[in-house]
Amino acid sequence: MVTEIAMLNIIPGMEPDFLASFEKAESIISSMNGYLQHELLKSVAEAGKYVLIVRWQTLEDHTEGFRKSAAYQEWKRLLHHFYDPFPVVEHYHRTGKAA
Amino acid sequence: MVTEIAMLNIIPGMEPDFLASFEKAESIISSMNGYLQHELLKSVAEAGKYVLIVRWQTLEDHTEGFRKSAAYQEWKRLLHHFYDPFPVVEHYHRTGKAA
Repeated sequence: MVTEIAMLNIIPGMEPDFLASFEKAESIISSMNGYLQHELLKSVAEAGKYVLIVRWQTLEDHTEGFRKSAAYQEWKRLLHHFYDPFPVVEHYHRTGKAA
Repeated sequence: MVTEIAMLNIIPGMEPDFLASFEKAESIISSMNGYLQHELLKSVAEAGKYVLIVRWQTLEDHTEGFRKSAAYQEWKRLLHHFYDPFPVVEHYHRTGKAA
């Protein structure tokens, strides 16, 4: 399993529209090959700051399967105009240290 | 539920010792009031980079209950000397956007 973590900063005033668009975008990512689970979390302390955590079976399910799909164009259209700056996306492996 | 996210950068050469110490530290955090779950993930792309995700029932379970406990002194002793820079810890709420 690979965990994708993206720290998202939403342009001030656009949070309600972002959340409405994210609701549509969820069905896109959830239907991709290798998709396991996702959660969108909101910062307690910082306005407009979110983190998106997505679990994939493999790294390539995200970087190849999702990002090179036609569905990704719709994901971008729904979401990318809400971000400033554009998010850095990082990938993580499990360490076995979990409970 | 509140999610604590800490991006950890381990001093080069100290990763094996960090992982061994983390194994001891896990039992400390896992026994705290309000602790729900944790995972330590390792960056796919960046050497020495980890993320610690801890789920707490409330924000105060982490910021008050854990950080002001005697057990936190032992957690610090086990782990804090592995980090450079010292990690920024952020807290997140659920948005209801998850699957």
